[in-house]
Amino acid sequence: MMLAAFSASAQQRNNVVPSFAGAVEDFQPNVTNQRGHQYPMVNSQGAVRAQLRAPQANSVQLDIGGRRYEMVKDENGVWTGTSDPQDVGFHYYQLNVDGASVPDPGTIYFFGAGRWGSGIEIPSADMDIWQVKNVPQGALEEKYYWSKATESMRHCFVYLPAEYQKNPNKKYPVLYLQHGNAEDENGWGSQGHTAQILDNLIAAGKAVPFIVVIDYGQSQNIHLVGQYAPEPQPAPAQPVQPAQPGARPGARQTGPDAFQVVLLTDIIPMVEKEYRVIADAQHRAMAGLSMGGMQTRRITVANPTTFAYVGLFSGGTISVEDVQGAAGYKDTNKLVFMSCGSKENPRVMEAAEALRGIGMNAVGYISEGTAHEWHTWRRSLYEFAQLLFK
Amino acid sequence: MMLAAFSASAQQRNNVVPSFAGAVEDFQPNVTNQRGHQYPMVNSQGAVRAQLRAPQANSVQLDIGGRRYEMVKDENGVWTGTSDPQDVGFHYYQLNVDGASVPDPGTIYFFGAGRWGSGIEIPSADMDIWQVKNVPQGALEEKYYWSKATESMRHCFVYLPAEYQKNPNKKYPVLYLQHGNAEDENGWGSQGHTAQILDNLIAAGKAVPFIVVIDYGQSQNIHLVGQYAPEPQPAPAQPVQPAQPGARPGARQTGPDAFQVVLLTDIIPMVEKEYRVIADAQHRAMAGLSMGGMQTRRITVANPTTFAYVGLFSGGTISVEDVQGAAGYKDTNKLVFMSCGSKENPRVMEAAEALRGIGMNAVGYISEGTAHEWHTWRRSLYEFAQLLFK
Repeated sequence: MMLAAFSASAQQRNNVVPSFAGAVEDFQPNVTNQRGHQYPMVNSQGAVRAQLRAPQANSVQLDIGGRRYEMVKDENGVWTGTSDPQDVGFHYYQLNVDGASVPDPGTIYFFGAGRWGSGIEIPSADMDIWQVKNVPQGALEEKYYWSKATESMRHCFVYLPAEYQKNPNKKYPVLYLQHGNAEDENGWGSQGHTAQILDNLIAAGKAVPFIVVIDYGQSQNIHLVGQYAPEPQPAPAQPVQPAQPGARPGARQTGPDAFQVVLLTDIIPMVEKEYRVIADAQHRAMAGLSMGGMQTRRITVANPTTFAYVGLFSGGTISVEDVQGAAGYKDTNKLVFMSCGSKENPRVMEAAEALRGIGMNAVGYISEGTAHEWHTWRRSLYEFAQLLFK
Repeated sequence: MMLAAFSASAQQRNNVVPSFAGAVEDFQPNVTNQRGHQYPMVNSQGAVRAQLRAPQANSVQLDIGGRRYEMVKDENGVWTGTSDPQDVGFHYYQLNVDGASVPDPGTIYFFGAGRWGSGIEIPSADMDIWQVKNVPQGALEEKYYWSKATESMRHCFVYLPAEYQKNPNKKYPVLYLQHGNAEDENGWGSQGHTAQILDNLIAAGKAVPFIVVIDYGQSQNIHLVGQYAPEPQPAPAQPVQPAQPGARPGARQTGPDAFQVVLLTDIIPMVEKEYRVIADAQHRAMAGLSMGGMQTRRITVANPTTFAYVGLFSGGTISVEDVQGAAGYKDTNKLVFMSCGSKENPRVMEAAEALRGIGMNAVGYISEGTAHEWHTWRRSLYEFAQLLFK
């Protein structure tokens, strides 16, 4: 009894739970499976069922959504386990084989949560927004470029709308679109489906054609050199922040940001040299998810006349004080868009209302039924893109 | 004794061997590791050392080059194992944890050998050819397009040379470049480093700028519809093949090939519509590795006036009879390039000599010290590209 009780307690501490027992048996192969793989599967409740052949293993677990589900071995050495229902949209997950956390060999792989690993897609009623359809197709370019600020070759992705190659004299607006913490420049094209969301919106006449630039923004991994490397310094003085809806005190520091340096020194100049771009603030947008949204706030406030369109997806809010403390921000800005999932802390509607109160065009958006994950951000891009450059 | 003998014999049957004992201790992190990962490592002998934390595992193996090396657990539950020296270049590999074959969580992932999984790079003296350098950079575009022949959206990659976006009225030649069996359209851009090889060659003035189109050619997974789906039929009659250097009887069947239908019906017309292309045989090349080389032979022989430049990389040979049996082939052709690794069956030099004997421009190339793997094919592309469209 003591041992069993201790064991149960140890399991709870590690968040190890039994497979979901209430699954409806209508599982279908997950859409991000490798070609020819039946598993993992997803059912109509959003439960995930994984399988792995590991005849000599002592324990195999399905690790998803902060829990590890015990999988059970059959007579052929194949382990099967089922998770509780998950939110609609995309989730990172992994398998745990005798203490080793490894990708599921059944899926293709995604970078996020700090590693390349498995991902699963729980179908949603609106997954149509990112499907590949028979509409005019843009292209997602993989592009390297020289960075003066880091004295290295950097790597980004550039979405070019379908008409770009057909209009050799037309110039286009640009959205600089950033990933979150522990993610990289692969996310928006892969699990974010940026190209498909924009191709579909542009084909439907809901968005104007624009370019999207997706770069790597994890500042602690960006090593600035020479004149670009700032001296260590205290954070600049900020207006006193009253407690208010939309205020997130933890996001207020605006100190040196290596990504800001690279964006302004290297990325924007490279894009405006290599592509046909309308190179002014009225045709330049910045947005990001989570950490990328916080960077968007800091960079646009620090450079208030550089970007006319601003998007924060699950990335905090821009306050009246931010705008009033940044000379030229209000006159330059055409849109502040702030969004989050309904399962996050949804202060975005109040923050947008406050900005509208000082005459800004501010839009709040809440993604119903989703948390701090990719489906929130796909939907945010879908909404934001329709408001850009109009 | 009996049991031990049986056990050793069973191990040999599964090709399970002890870790390499003679490793020089100068291991460095592999270049395809995930950011921040030390393992896997490679030493100056080309030996691979892998690590995995799996405290409860009974057995962990490093599975590379047709052998499974037993890894050994330390007091922290971390398993370490070392392979015998490998050939220079890129190799697929995986770990085996208690019977489960899984990707190594230390590397980024590649599609090949029929699965997304780990890859490792053994440095070579000529790895400079595919490094990202500060030279004018082209772009590798990811592109979807509608396929009439399959009634589906298909997916390819298109390399555009650096000057493409700067010369809006200039048209370019095109190389159609195919992967091997159990690979897909990701290989040439990722482990093949096509964009880097061409950027570097073009910057050095060793190759003229051209477009490369990389599509998916695994015919058994290409489902033709309606008028495009051929009736089952016997292979067309072929000239009698005498036994000769360069003749590979197994590669002689030219029956219906779903990839050929898609290439001619969908891919080439799409490319010539979407990009600025010189749309004639003298500015159109086809090449492929392994199965893609055999497809190149079959498709160019079946369409003898469509492609002026032909490359077979570890993909068999084109014979005098092939050329003489295909009306127009010799007059259209500007180059037949045939290559393989020195550890393969190198009939390519004799085959090239035979073609030169009938007045063709034929080049054989042997990649020293490599087998049927990606470094052979990178080198082949490097050599072939310098001979194209001149």
